[in-house]
Amino acid sequence: MDAFAFARANRPRFLGELEEFLRIPSVSTQPEHQPDMLDAANWLRDQLLAVGFPRAEILPTAGHPIVFAEWSCRRPAAPTVLLYGHYDVQPADPLELWRTPPFEPVVVGDDLYARGASDDKGQLLAQIKAVESLSATAGEPPVSIRCLFEGEEESGSEHLDDFVTANRSILQADVALISDSSILSKDQPSIIYAVRGITYVEVEVTGPAGDLHSGRYGGAVHNPIHALAEMIAGLHDSQGRITIPGFYDRVQVLTPAERAGLARLPFDRHAWLREAGITTDWGEPEYSIVERTTARPTLDVNGIWGGYTQPGAKTVLPSKAFAKISMRLVPQQDPAEISRLIQDHFQAIAPPAVTVQVRELHHGQGAIVPLDSPAIQAAARAYAESFGAEPLFVREGGSLPVVATLRRELGIDSILMGFGLPDDNLHAPNEKLHLPNYFRGIDTVIRFLSYLA
Amino acid sequence: MDAFAFARANRPRFLGELEEFLRIPSVSTQPEHQPDMLDAANWLRDQLLAVGFPRAEILPTAGHPIVFAEWSCRRPAAPTVLLYGHYDVQPADPLELWRTPPFEPVVVGDDLYARGASDDKGQLLAQIKAVESLSATAGEPPVSIRCLFEGEEESGSEHLDDFVTANRSILQADVALISDSSILSKDQPSIIYAVRGITYVEVEVTGPAGDLHSGRYGGAVHNPIHALAEMIAGLHDSQGRITIPGFYDRVQVLTPAERAGLARLPFDRHAWLREAGITTDWGEPEYSIVERTTARPTLDVNGIWGGYTQPGAKTVLPSKAFAKISMRLVPQQDPAEISRLIQDHFQAIAPPAVTVQVRELHHGQGAIVPLDSPAIQAAARAYAESFGAEPLFVREGGSLPVVATLRRELGIDSILMGFGLPDDNLHAPNEKLHLPNYFRGIDTVIRFLSYLA
Repeated sequence: MDAFAFARANRPRFLGELEEFLRIPSVSTQPEHQPDMLDAANWLRDQLLAVGFPRAEILPTAGHPIVFAEWSCRRPAAPTVLLYGHYDVQPADPLELWRTPPFEPVVVGDDLYARGASDDKGQLLAQIKAVESLSATAGEPPVSIRCLFEGEEESGSEHLDDFVTANRSILQADVALISDSSILSKDQPSIIYAVRGITYVEVEVTGPAGDLHSGRYGGAVHNPIHALAEMIAGLHDSQGRITIPGFYDRVQVLTPAERAGLARLPFDRHAWLREAGITTDWGEPEYSIVERTTARPTLDVNGIWGGYTQPGAKTVLPSKAFAKISMRLVPQQDPAEISRLIQDHFQAIAPPAVTVQVRELHHGQGAIVPLDSPAIQAAARAYAESFGAEPLFVREGGSLPVVATLRRELGIDSILMGFGLPDDNLHAPNEKLHLPNYFRGIDTVIRFLSYLA
Repeated sequence: MDAFAFARANRPRFLGELEEFLRIPSVSTQPEHQPDMLDAANWLRDQLLAVGFPRAEILPTAGHPIVFAEWSCRRPAAPTVLLYGHYDVQPADPLELWRTPPFEPVVVGDDLYARGASDDKGQLLAQIKAVESLSATAGEPPVSIRCLFEGEEESGSEHLDDFVTANRSILQADVALISDSSILSKDQPSIIYAVRGITYVEVEVTGPAGDLHSGRYGGAVHNPIHALAEMIAGLHDSQGRITIPGFYDRVQVLTPAERAGLARLPFDRHAWLREAGITTDWGEPEYSIVERTTARPTLDVNGIWGGYTQPGAKTVLPSKAFAKISMRLVPQQDPAEISRLIQDHFQAIAPPAVTVQVRELHHGQGAIVPLDSPAIQAAARAYAESFGAEPLFVREGGSLPVVATLRRELGIDSILMGFGLPDDNLHAPNEKLHLPNYFRGIDTVIRFLSYLA
């Protein structure tokens, strides 16, 4: 019996185990679920020991613990793959919108409904079940495996960086496999080969030393809200390009091949406009919407405030106005450098009558894996054979801090092989996992690990 | 004995009566002072009856009552003067910053310390004491007098308009005398001959139907905060001029004589910058700071908000962004027309990917009294003779809604003759009235009423 036959024969048990895992309400952001977080970590450690990992333990962090496991392949040349996933889930609220209780898994047709089914317990367990299927039929996995399963992904992975930095030696690997994302549709697999970085700043504009009466001082005092609006308005040109000097210096021109690849992705502009709730798109006209939202750097004001913001009228000329601004960066851009550029830019454009302070709130590096790298090729072949369709290559518009952390601390690429679907209701009521994806996911990871061996 | 000798002879009593009035903590905005408000209205009515008004009564409104009084002069050609003031006071908080209890009047040197001493009980009582001095020595006042003393000035005069509209017949007069303002200094009287109008709107910009993830949609969805910033940035040109089409159409060019008058006002730019807490001024370069803040129309954003405004970072591309915008208008501008102009302008400049709603919150008409009008001339002469210095003519940058109400409902001008000083600590701890101003104020009103006769 090979690994695929083993996986097929054990489907009922694999489903039952996932249901067991989903019954533990491991909500990391809610203190009342603290005991459940420990239950989930224990369950996961026991599961890893049960499938044969020689070492599996719960390692503390300043927050929720990490479940770590290690299974070294006896074959000397075997590479090491670091599996990443998270055992914590989003809160279930609003409870009244769930058709079935969030922590009582229910199968309806091909779908398994429960909080965490897709994000990320189902995907994490698919990784483990692939290792189990391989080792149960061959005595050991075809590559060395290390597992890094965190309990704080839904609360910002606050202690992951420190943990990885402090535990570099036990985490050393050749490549990471992250299963915490979606494919394009149930019959169309896809591989995320790039994630964007981010620089997030807060801008504080100060005009007069204190709030003034706008009827007494307006017209002769530069209102800091006006100054802020002028500066924000100037951050993009009329074509939606960012005007910060040097901002694009490290941005690589998209190759014709890459643009052709992105153009092949299924994209329905009308469906996208409907989903975004807008009537027309915006931005750099020479780039497609897919390119603008994933392969180009962007700048958005995420918040703005100043003066009187309560109901009714107050005639204040405020002392201060504020904005929060984030920039999504392509992998070649250096978030720390961009942080300096925007700080310098605000000083350069600040009108004479106000002062401007720009504070960085955080930044994170983007990442890209070459499409011709062996790991990406292995992932592509694994998907194609498991799903019966060649995967498409996509870039993620958002940021995945763990990718940058693993790159920085361990020097490795991350392969993002997800098995969720766009309609899985992540972070929403009635989260589900499409069960054929769970089983195909197991097959895909079996193949991926085998091809890397 | 003439009125001035009477007033001089009765100074101790006039001071004692003011102290009595000030001991009543008539704070209109604090419900616990409701009984004190009635006490103050009763005290005022009794005072008016005591000085000889044939009719004085407390008339209800939906809020605090109005004290109304009437004394018709038997001389057939005598004009009617409507006296306006308010018997309510600001809250005394923060109490710990008062050197003496706010409702226990104390004379220190030439100053009488108490909440309401200057704003407005002292100024209101100066009007009454002038009428008393005149009638006590001549049998009746030289003009017919009507009194409109409200109890809600410090809480927005919410019910004044309705009262005036409903009581037009008893309030009919030829001119109003409002004593609720300051002169430039104790030896330099001044007359406010113009107040600005106001139009106050709230702007709501809607982009996507709901909040979006800025990492997923940024760069292809026009962020409503950006759109709002662009529109606000465009409301002024580089010279600080307002760009709303038609905005200046009714604005009269300031005459050389008027500009010369405003240029004669004492103004220390460095002191003004220090007071405003800024390092440099801003605005229309061809107008002086005094002109910009009193004789030119202005536009200020009083508040702005949208997206995430709490501590920390959130990567939201918000559905909506808002601003509150007020415009101070010169008397010739029609606030309702300006309201339409700004609404039309926002529709015209709204970028295609967002929708904009502009709602008017309120508006009020400005007012100007020609410097050569008989009432202004009478006021000027009265000040000059009582203070020994020619008054200067100033324009008020703020709005005085009662002036517009009296103009609209009664068709009359208001003469703003105040007796406060800039350092009276209005609305602040240790409010005071400079007692020589109280007594000179009485003399000034005696003269003003006599000259109108």
